[in-house]
Amino acid sequence: MLLLIPGPVQTRPEVRAAMAVDIAPWDDDTQAELAALRERLLAIAGGVPGEHAVLPVTGAGHAVVEACLRSFVPPGGKVLIPLNGAYAQRMARLAREAGRAVVALEVPDTRPVGAAEVAAALAADPAIGHVGMVYSETGSGIVNDPEAVGAAVRAAGRRLVLDAVSAFGALPFRMDAHPECDALAFTTGKCLEGMPGIGMAVARTDRLLACAGRAGSWVLDLAAIHDHALRNGWGSHRFTPAVQVLHALGAALDLYDREGGQPARLARYAENARVLYEGALALGLTPYLERRHQGPIVVTVHQPPDPAFALRGFVAALKARGVLISNFFSTATPTFRVGCIGAVTPGEMGAAVAAMRDALDSLGVRRRAAA
Amino acid sequence: MLLLIPGPVQTRPEVRAAMAVDIAPWDDDTQAELAALRERLLAIAGGVPGEHAVLPVTGAGHAVVEACLRSFVPPGGKVLIPLNGAYAQRMARLAREAGRAVVALEVPDTRPVGAAEVAAALAADPAIGHVGMVYSETGSGIVNDPEAVGAAVRAAGRRLVLDAVSAFGALPFRMDAHPECDALAFTTGKCLEGMPGIGMAVARTDRLLACAGRAGSWVLDLAAIHDHALRNGWGSHRFTPAVQVLHALGAALDLYDREGGQPARLARYAENARVLYEGALALGLTPYLERRHQGPIVVTVHQPPDPAFALRGFVAALKARGVLISNFFSTATPTFRVGCIGAVTPGEMGAAVAAMRDALDSLGVRRRAAA
Ligand SMILES: Cc1ncc(COP(=O)(O)O)c(C=O)c1O
Ligand SMILES: Cc1ncc(COP(=O)(O)O)c(C=O)c1O
Repeated sequence: MLLLIPGPVQTRPEVRAAMAVDIAPWDDDTQAELAALRERLLAIAGGVPGEHAVLPVTGAGHAVVEACLRSFVPPGGKVLIPLNGAYAQRMARLAREAGRAVVALEVPDTRPVGAAEVAAALAADPAIGHVGMVYSETGSGIVNDPEAVGAAVRAAGRRLVLDAVSAFGALPFRMDAHPECDALAFTTGKCLEGMPGIGMAVARTDRLLACAGRAGSWVLDLAAIHDHALRNGWGSHRFTPAVQVLHALGAALDLYDREGGQPARLARYAENARVLYEGALALGLTPYLERRHQGPIVVTVHQPPDPAFALRGFVAALKARGVLISNFFSTATPTFRVGCIGAVTPGEMGAAVAAMRDALDSLGVRRRAAA
Repeated sequence: MLLLIPGPVQTRPEVRAAMAVDIAPWDDDTQAELAALRERLLAIAGGVPGEHAVLPVTGAGHAVVEACLRSFVPPGGKVLIPLNGAYAQRMARLAREAGRAVVALEVPDTRPVGAAEVAAALAADPAIGHVGMVYSETGSGIVNDPEAVGAAVRAAGRRLVLDAVSAFGALPFRMDAHPECDALAFTTGKCLEGMPGIGMAVARTDRLLACAGRAGSWVLDLAAIHDHALRNGWGSHRFTPAVQVLHALGAALDLYDREGGQPARLARYAENARVLYEGALALGLTPYLERRHQGPIVVTVHQPPDPAFALRGFVAALKARGVLISNFFSTATPTFRVGCIGAVTPGEMGAAVAAMRDALDSLGVRRRAAA
């Protein structure tokens, strides 16, 4: 079975094998492993030792995004969120339920937010302290631009929290080039091609110290995680971690390095997405996004208007052909969603497109002549 | 290496092997697996379908304990916590940081809290709505009595939140016999002998509905998890779970059933603890707890007063002999701590005692003549 979902992803055998071990988290060897992992992740994030810290939170991506919001946006504080996708909506809900005031910036889920739109919203409301933005919007497949938006946030003297959950490791971002960024969030089970179960933040240490005491949750308090590491070492854990997931991430990072790191990973994913996008067009299907807005992480495709098409039946027919895609969609109109990330090659993507053709034909779905 | 730590525990090969797979959480087969897992866990908790619900939270045990407190104790509400151990202290911190008012009931960490003490504290302060209690106190090894304390809570018309993290699956507790219990918390990586990474609550559905909206955190909101399951099915997830950990738990429950369930597991752990307790005495060491207060989960032993003893050196010497114990202690005075849980037999416990004797001798630690 080939997993084509945007996390958890298809992994390599070395990563799976690294899960099948008993590990004591507080053992010295395990602590050395976590400390080394943090250094490697800090380098991928373009962080500087001492100035930035890698802060693991056992939990889903939502948990670490909530931790970022709670730890930096003060209770009652205003956070501007460009709402151009399902995960941006989720970030807004996380912030609101944590008692932060969300200022919504409405943007369609078919294009990135513009830096000028963000700048205008910030200028209109000086009480906004933070911008919360999703880097790669896994709902539709668009990619927002943290370079341009980050510059606008910086120019306005505000702070950024970046949800890089489906971007980290593939799309570039350097903490050392973004002093306006308090924290970015990612997880072990997406573009790093590890297993799911741990979220991580990379955060500025000066801001962690300045914002201590804001979180209103011991579990989701990044400042407390940082403080614990300062006192007990960078291999220590406050709570019992999903330690096999950490161990597997080490194996995944070995493969990441061997592949050539971020540029190589991005190139492979971009090619995967291209094969899928072109393949969908060739099948007479209509991608949800214009080509210029199509990111490398997820490709969403309009569901064919033929009543013979039903998402669950299509997913089942694909599964029977060895390809697993998401059985739900989270775009504004009905689509199906295919992940381009994980240990998947462009060749396998081509095979997946062929499986889609067979699946559609087996369901008797009429396709338009290819564009 | 034999893991003798109270979680993550030594597991069986079948459990480890179940970790080494790629799984799509939203796939129909995976959903069926989670739904079945929930039914099995509900039965172990003595819950009634419809009246009680099993609510997974990817995260550490702390996360699910915080979720229980947030979801049932209202913001600003008072929770009485008998403080007889390190994990009770942690529960108090979780409650306080979540903005709940902790009423401390001071009890030494060498004995269980008495039901009469709890009753008196509740009578003294009618504003206390909840009691938060640790079942098995992993700090020292004592076991509190949720039968007696639960009855006192019930008689006083208050509610109970039970931290059963290091008890669930081995020490008995039936939700259907404890209407005063809003929720109990446990994790996958302790007495169920699965892998760490997911916490679970078993909660009353009437109370989940009545208390909806209290949590002040979307991630740690049990009512929202319940609501999601009601709408999307008992195999669904709100967020990406540590899905391999769920899969491994299924394998662990197969072994649990084969062993004979809770009574058999308790009997094995109790025998493990007895071998260790007697073994420590025979080595001229002094267990931290009186025999009548010694629980079956963890045995703590006073560090020998000989200056040749240092905890980290002792742990390293034991590790060189194939036995891994915790390299920290969390009792009121210095101890070392040995877990009696996991896929460990009384025979292996005997071998661990022999390894302790060798380790102490190799360090030149004088031992008293055996009592
Ligand atoms: C951009 C983005 N943010 C947040 C999340 C939430 O992560 P999780 O599902 O692990 O909670 C996801 C998950 O797909 C995501 O893609
Ligand atoms: C009784 C008790 N409560 C809570 C916890 C917290 O669990 P975790 O370490 O998974 O956060 C533990 C962990 O050992 C425990 O033993």
